[in-house]
Amino acid sequence: MKATGVVVEYNPFHYGHAYHVRQAKTHTSSDVAIAVMSGSFLQRGEPAIVSKWARTKMALQNGVDIVCELPYIYAVQKAETFANGAVSILDALKCRSLFFGSENGDIKAFERTAHAWLEKKEEIDLFTKEKVKEGLSYPAAAAAAFQEVIDPTHLLDLSKPNNILGFHYVKAILERSPHIEPFTSQRIASGYHDQELPEHQKIASATSIRKALKEHGSFETVTSYLPEASLKQLHDYHSSYDLLHTQEDYFSFLKHVFHTMDTAELKGIYEIEEGIEHRMQKAITHASSYEEYLSLVKTKRYTWTRLQRMNTHLLMRVKKNDMHELLKEKQAPYIRLLGMSKKGQQYLSLVKKELDVPLVSKLSSLSHPALDLDIRASRVFSLPISEPMQTELTEAEFKTSPIRYDEETGLFQSR
Amino acid sequence: MKATGVVVEYNPFHYGHAYHVRQAKTHTSSDVAIAVMSGSFLQRGEPAIVSKWARTKMALQNGVDIVCELPYIYAVQKAETFANGAVSILDALKCRSLFFGSENGDIKAFERTAHAWLEKKEEIDLFTKEKVKEGLSYPAAAAAAFQEVIDPTHLLDLSKPNNILGFHYVKAILERSPHIEPFTSQRIASGYHDQELPEHQKIASATSIRKALKEHGSFETVTSYLPEASLKQLHDYHSSYDLLHTQEDYFSFLKHVFHTMDTAELKGIYEIEEGIEHRMQKAITHASSYEEYLSLVKTKRYTWTRLQRMNTHLLMRVKKNDMHELLKEKQAPYIRLLGMSKKGQQYLSLVKKELDVPLVSKLSSLSHPALDLDIRASRVFSLPISEPMQTELTEAEFKTSPIRYDEETGLFQSR
Repeated sequence: MKATGVVVEYNPFHYGHAYHVRQAKTHTSSDVAIAVMSGSFLQRGEPAIVSKWARTKMALQNGVDIVCELPYIYAVQKAETFANGAVSILDALKCRSLFFGSENGDIKAFERTAHAWLEKKEEIDLFTKEKVKEGLSYPAAAAAAFQEVIDPTHLLDLSKPNNILGFHYVKAILERSPHIEPFTSQRIASGYHDQELPEHQKIASATSIRKALKEHGSFETVTSYLPEASLKQLHDYHSSYDLLHTQEDYFSFLKHVFHTMDTAELKGIYEIEEGIEHRMQKAITHASSYEEYLSLVKTKRYTWTRLQRMNTHLLMRVKKNDMHELLKEKQAPYIRLLGMSKKGQQYLSLVKKELDVPLVSKLSSLSHPALDLDIRASRVFSLPISEPMQTELTEAEFKTSPIRYDEETGLFQSR
Repeated sequence: MKATGVVVEYNPFHYGHAYHVRQAKTHTSSDVAIAVMSGSFLQRGEPAIVSKWARTKMALQNGVDIVCELPYIYAVQKAETFANGAVSILDALKCRSLFFGSENGDIKAFERTAHAWLEKKEEIDLFTKEKVKEGLSYPAAAAAAFQEVIDPTHLLDLSKPNNILGFHYVKAILERSPHIEPFTSQRIASGYHDQELPEHQKIASATSIRKALKEHGSFETVTSYLPEASLKQLHDYHSSYDLLHTQEDYFSFLKHVFHTMDTAELKGIYEIEEGIEHRMQKAITHASSYEEYLSLVKTKRYTWTRLQRMNTHLLMRVKKNDMHELLKEKQAPYIRLLGMSKKGQQYLSLVKKELDVPLVSKLSSLSHPALDLDIRASRVFSLPISEPMQTELTEAEFKTSPIRYDEETGLFQSR
């Protein structure tokens, strides 16, 4: 059996994702598709709109065979760390290929660029640091350094978000897992960050779907953009917990962190650097929304996304030293299994014996500080939910074994 | 001009309090009554039902001339520390007497008991420690030690809450401010902790009033037990902030603390001792309410009240070392003025020059770690309020100068 890997957030799962999974299987001639999915908090430093369990169900009902959690230590990170973590998990699961969507669509361009980067790595690093010192944000500096060091005719456009991610997947593959074959296809129809729902087609960006959900407060406007299974999971989650999570729901908790930590403690939090804690501390006492707060903190030096990640680390109180220690290892310390189809289950029973990394089905089976952070993330994620549902959801984390889906009957199996 | 002091929480201000203030002035033949009032969190470790500003207004409209805040470092403490802090502030404000209500009602009994205690202090301490080791809670151990060391015929009944507080006021006076004369009168009609509203009289306990407010969700049932000014302030607060604060409103924030602090950090919090942090950590993940959580933590060794105080210190993340440092001084480091009547203002202008302790009218006028804790308490207190009202209330802390009340016109003065 052959497996291909995809790296996803499914926030929420939409027709574009369904198309992507189908493509992944056909383009790579694979039997199963394995999704490495961010858990409670996402790469852009935002909470997921619904729990990882609801999103796992959406995925399984739409062609994904295995869903694993991308640990917090990789999930809420810049593209490079995010990609390295995801590739290490797909590698550990014996995937023979990785499939991603991109604005560019030509895998040769990614390979060329990654090779060029690897050759001139030090030179680019040096340039990047200089640009950062001049006041550019890290992604802007990296892109500019690239331009200066490498012949631009060979380059990917690294200002496009999916090109950046794809570049880091391919780079990670070249650096650490050369037996994985990378594939890409051009993303169709909608841009990653498109704010508005499109008028004449079914594929809309997850961003525009979340925005519509938030603005209209009902599922009606997004019905035609979401597969039935996604809609049902969103519906069920919303009626159980009375919430679709947004950053604003965590603002009081973030305030609590700032109110009760002194500057020295704030400085000990991962990614908090260069005195930004003073700026944040000042801003948060005056702001009455997360949006307002972040606008007060924003400077040219930091991207919005990076600031959001910093604030998620603050909300989670993730310490610098702890995170640096956990990121030292090149290989993900475990594979947390969230769900599988029957075919996925078959695949896992075949490769199980060859795995070098523990496969975690039940939280009680492994104790690891990175896994503790995933548990913490689940609990913090649940804080805005009213009681007793909040406790119900966090307790489920310990009771839920991976979700089993029977793709023939279309039913989830009771355990 | 002669001033008498009362130590209060006014949670909320009711007819019993009004009677107490009148008595204080007449029994001690004083011109002004100074109330030292707990701020955001109270002696039993609970949040106040409304802000200190609303409670200050209630007091001024009902015969109190000066309201000062009892700093957090004294307010959320066992009776002894609470009383010492309060007496030190009344002393600093040149009060010549202190008036308190008690179950006993005979000041001689208090003086006798306090003298006896001072004489046999070490012996009692020794006995108390032994009883605590045997598993008794501190108050129960202290009462038992008393019984054994001192002839019980001379004793106050120290199982009664207001006798305990009164005893500590008188003891503090004997130890540190012998020029203050203590007065007491028997509390009438209702017990301190009475749960039910009485049927045929106007004086109900604050506990029963809060309980009725919570259960009925309206002001109707309590109308006849509260002076008009109190009702109005409660009404106004509730319509501005859509909340009358209870401990349950802070439960998610307390969970956040536990989710994001490890055991070593929990152990560093003031009053967390003897491994109770493990018990708490375990209980909080399973409990879906504060009440349920505390029931799971409760043992014979700790009173409910002490556990509530511990959890308030956790919510505030008050560190052991910081608190121990702040409690070393025998004298309150400042007097925070919350409000005054015209007569109160006259009194203050008379004694102002003699004050040995800074009188804080505006927060910006003094920087002190104990004052920082008061500010922190205000901010934490406001967390359950929705935005933008939350920010409004916390910003007010810095803008509000003391409330001025004109007792002749019955109007608050605009500043």
